[in-house]
This record gives sequence, structure tokens and C-alpha cells, in this order.
Amino acid sequence: MNQEINQEAKSTAPGTLFGVGVGPGDPELLTIKAIRVLERCPVVAYPRTRGENSLALDIVRRAGVDLEGKRLLPLLFPMTKEKEALRRYHDEAAGAVMAELRAGSDVAMPSLGDASLYSTFSYVLARVKKAGLPVQVVPGVPSFCAAAASFGRSLTAMRQPLHIIPAGYEGSLQALSLPGSKVVMKSGRTLPELCARLDELGLLERSSLAENVGLPGERMVPAMTRETESAGYFTTVMVWPEEKEGQL
Amino acid sequence: MNQEINQEAKSTAPGTLFGVGVGPGDPELLTIKAIRVLERCPVVAYPRTRGENSLALDIVRRAGVDLEGKRLLPLLFPMTKEKEALRRYHDEAAGAVMAELRAGSDVAMPSLGDASLYSTFSYVLARVKKAGLPVQVVPGVPSFCAAAASFGRSLTAMRQPLHIIPAGYEGSLQALSLPGSKVVMKSGRTLPELCARLDELGLLERSSLAENVGLPGERMVPAMTRETESAGYFTTVMVWPEEKEGQL
Repeated sequence: MNQEINQEAKSTAPGTLFGVGVGPGDPELLTIKAIRVLERCPVVAYPRTRGENSLALDIVRRAGVDLEGKRLLPLLFPMTKEKEALRRYHDEAAGAVMAELRAGSDVAMPSLGDASLYSTFSYVLARVKKAGLPVQVVPGVPSFCAAAASFGRSLTAMRQPLHIIPAGYEGSLQALSLPGSKVVMKSGRTLPELCARLDELGLLERSSLAENVGLPGERMVPAMTRETESAGYFTTVMVWPEEKEGQL
Repeated sequence: MNQEINQEAKSTAPGTLFGVGVGPGDPELLTIKAIRVLERCPVVAYPRTRGENSLALDIVRRAGVDLEGKRLLPLLFPMTKEKEALRRYHDEAAGAVMAELRAGSDVAMPSLGDASLYSTFSYVLARVKKAGLPVQVVPGVPSFCAAAASFGRSLTAMRQPLHIIPAGYEGSLQALSLPGSKVVMKSGRTLPELCARLDELGLLERSSLAENVGLPGERMVPAMTRETESAGYFTTVMVWPEEKEGQL
């Protein structure tokens, strides 16, 4: 009897995991594809850090995706730097997703911004791929693109690079002196050091800050100063191209 | 009589220029906002390089935006490096857009990928802003995000930077040795030098190539070699994060 059940389970084709970039906050910044995939999947696995709130799921809801009748699968991604604990949480999250996939259900996992850039989805992706289960990724609008758009400015000069620097990168302050434009992501906590370094490099006057773009508590600082106040987790600092590199 | 006409013209509130990122090719990668803005604007100004074809306009069409009854305004952006000639073309393109804005029409300008990253829109944006006319930017999915998604991979390691390098940047080969992930945009013409340099740095085996993502003639090369064949203009080379920096 057990034997039979196992064989039955094995014969079910596994579901596909869809990592879905939902943009940084404005529900109108979901793509047509993101909405179609989210509407089609019977299971929505969503990351949450603490409490019950999930920004990514809120955006999906505000975009008008009907979640009625879907199984909502909360995945816990606590904000800890303890490596072993993190690995355990990631294994657990991936395990919950893989159980659904093996039972034959397609699973959508909404991801803030783009799904390939510094996303919690990437932890689940790596494990699901290693297990040989099918994965598809739907790209989204990254937060720094939305921030640049809100300021109505081009983030790049034509023949100059753009450096995306996560605040947790140990060389982040040194990277600010690279040629070209710079984006420092999740820069809230390190803002005082960041401001000081930008000032030293003479870059402060062409730096802007965007906090919670498209979310409640949005704050836009077009021209930063040494006094720019500390900010929350979803803070992006942009160092624009030099005027002389501009598009005129 | 002339006096009267002029005053009438002056009293019209100017239209707004909307730079609209339409993603790299797949019409499903337009955002809800992009479609809404494109549908609302009576004038669509589209960049074209030669002949009558415009990739950005084709994507808009394939996304099902109804262009019937709209004024289509072709803007010529020839592929020349002659600075003075370029400046003249950009002035002319912006002039055509500003005439529509001053007449009170909202103008949408579709832009491949994201509108703030290496877009021809940026040339028009700079001039329209300088003239004090209203501009809004709608962000889009950048080509490198769509390429990473097609490969089903995370483009970044968690605490490592990502460097976006346009092939026309004079330091592009040196920038390949920066720590973190790398994206080389529009790398078709420089592919042989790029491959040689990646090989020297031991990075070739973790580099992929994506050509015409979501467009006719799409080509995906997951693992590049010294023999990877030369490619067209819309080619993106990605140097993925090291395995040890991966998300397991």
C-alpha cells in the first residue's frame, strides 16, 4: 500500500518554481508577465522577516492579483548575520517550497524589485535547482531604476560604467571612488559613514537619496548634505554622472 | 492677428514628456504603468537608427497598445560617433518633441529596457528639462535583468557589488577585474577582446552571453569559450558571482 502511494507520488510531474520580480513598491510597476504568473500559480510563497507583514505580498495584493483560493506559504527570512542559523532558515524555506513542487503544484515567489538582484529568492532558487526541480525567473523593475525615474534623471553617462554596491559589501566605501555612476543599496544603517566619504570625494552635491520608493513613508532627497538624516532599510543612494558627462 | 495667435499659444499649458521603459523585447515585460501611459498619450515619439524600423515601437505594438489615432513622431538617432553631428541630431529630436509639448500634447517616448540606463531618451530628457518643460520617467526592466532571468540565475552574490559596463567605455577591459559580478552591455563588436581578457582573468568559464533577449534572433550561450562567435549590437555578457559566493 505504501509502495503504491510512493509510486503514485513519483509519477506526478513536479511543479515549477517561479521567482517573480514585483518591482520596488508601486503596484503599477508589475509587468504583465508577473501578474499572469502570479494569477496562474495555486501556491504563493512569500518572504517575511518578522511579524505577519510581507512587503512583496502587499505589492501583489495592491496590484489587484486575486489571492482568494490560493495557498499562501510564508517563508521566514529573519534578519540575522549568524551564518549557520541563516542556512537553516534558507534550507527550511526551500524545503517548504520543494514539498509543494514535488506534490505537483506550481509555486510563485514574489520578490521585491528584480528577482536576480540581491533577492531572498536566490537562496531558494539555488536549493531548488540543486534538487533538479524546474525553476523559471520573471524579471522585474529594480529599485534603483524606479528611484532614478522618480528624480527624472538618467542614472548613467553614455560611455561610463554604473556600479551597484550593496551596503553590506566590505569594500563599499572604497568603491565610491570608481569612475562612473554609483548606486548604494540598502544604505540606511551606514548613511553617516557614506555621507562622510562622499563629502571627502567631493561627490556629496551630486548624490541623491531615495527611501521607500513607491511605498508608505517615501522620502526623496535630491541633493544630499552632511546633515542628511539617517534612514530606514530600503534606502538607495545614487551618485549621478558628472555634468560634463551629461547628455547635452 | 499674429499677436492674438501667439497669446493663445502661450496660454496653453504645455504637455508632459513621458520617457517609458518598455523592457528588452518580450512584450509581456512592459509594466502596467508603461501600458497606461502609452495608451493615454496622443503622441508617441520613437527612436529609429536607420530605415523605418524601431525596436522600441515594435515592442509597444506587440504589447497590444493601440496606436491608431495617435501621432507617431520618428526621431532619428543615427549610429555615428561624430560628436557635432550627434549633437545636431539630438537637438533636432528634442526640438520636434518640444514643439508637441508646447502645443499642449503629452508625448510618450518608448525606450528599450529601462529609461534611465544608457537610453537615447536621456538626450531628449536633458534638453526638455533645460527648456523647463515637464518630464516624467516610467522605469522598465533592464536587459541584463531579463538575461539573468532567462538563465534562471542570480546575477549577484549577497555582499558583493555588480558592475554595469558599457562596451564603449574605454576602461571596460580593466573593469572586468573588479570584485563582484559584471555585465558588459552592447558587447557585440568588442567580443573577441572581451573573450581574451576574460580568459586571461580565469573568468571565461563563469561568463554567459545573451543576444537579442526576447527579440527575433535570440541566442543564449550559458558557458562562453574563446571560440564564442561574434555577436550583434544587442549582446550582453554576464560574469556571474563565484560559486563560493553563491546562495547555498
